[in-house]
Amino acid sequence: MAQQEVQNGGGVEKDAAAPAVSTVTFTAVKPQISVEAPKANDAVQFYKAAFGAEEVGRTMHSKRKAEQETPLILSAELSLAGSTVLVSDLVADSAAPVKSEGSGGVVLCLETEDVAAAIAKAVSAGAVAEGEVVEGEGACCGGSVGKVTDPYGFSWLICSPVKKCATVEA
Amino acid sequence: MAQQEVQNGGGVEKDAAAPAVSTVTFTAVKPQISVEAPKANDAVQFYKAAFGAEEVGRTMHSKRKAEQETPLILSAELSLAGSTVLVSDLVADSAAPVKSEGSGGVVLCLETEDVAAAIAKAVSAGAVAEGEVVEGEGACCGGSVGKVTDPYGFSWLICSPVKKCATVEA
Repeated sequence: MAQQEVQNGGGVEKDAAAPAVSTVTFTAVKPQISVEAPKANDAVQFYKAAFGAEEVGRTMHSKRKAEQETPLILSAELSLAGSTVLVSDLVADSAAPVKSEGSGGVVLCLETEDVAAAIAKAVSAGAVAEGEVVEGEGACCGGSVGKVTDPYGFSWLICSPVKKCATVEA
Repeated sequence: MAQQEVQNGGGVEKDAAAPAVSTVTFTAVKPQISVEAPKANDAVQFYKAAFGAEEVGRTMHSKRKAEQETPLILSAELSLAGSTVLVSDLVADSAAPVKSEGSGGVVLCLETEDVAAAIAKAVSAGAVAEGEVVEGEGACCGGSVGKVTDPYGFSWLICSPVKKCATVEA
């Protein structure tokens, strides 16, 4: 709407879709439910009782604050009707991009081998990248995690496939 | 909380968990994204461009208001990474239980053949049933749709399997 001028337009050609970007493949969609800490464990128990969900993995927050009486859940992986649903404790000062004010607690996590390319493609389509891609301790049990917000206000996590989810000890 | 008296309690025994309730099986988890009307169609186009989603079905609102210039989407069914994601226009006066103030726009839709039993089981575990089960025109492309809110404030749609989703006309 506002008039835009090309500031550095010295012969740069802009293709509508770059070839490398168009090859992004997603391997899973995992809804992530962020629960007010430290209620994620209770929520997991509830989803087992109410919906028959099975917990197949759990990763705890590595940074445990002194005042925390109970360790917090970075990501509990539930199997439900053939899908994976992630449940996390929402920590105010978390470094991981698990906060989702805009989406109010449920964020869709898109799993892909190439997080950077997926984010680039989403941004080229109109999404806004939020923060940096976080390595190691992400919302989806390790690997790389980035976040984009779409033009309709919804947050999406773009994350590499699960590698570190610990098996739940019975 | 309020004292309840058994009005017609002639010999009725209440088991903690009725056998019928424990046999609920869910066949799919479908995240439903409710977009401010009438932007759902734009959102669908965006999810195609940004994430490579494919639209496999679309159901329109049957009650089209006179002042609406464009027909509104009750539910567009997107295939993404082996999962189904539903996109809907959020209509303020919609009869269908697609509104989700608590969950802020993303609600998880649990598909099952026995909606009533699933709701009963969830309620017995601590969820609160919201409204009545709606027949016919639901958020998940027809069938029965009910809604529960879990103890952590998240809404879940309990819906029968898709039967009426129209094939998208190319």
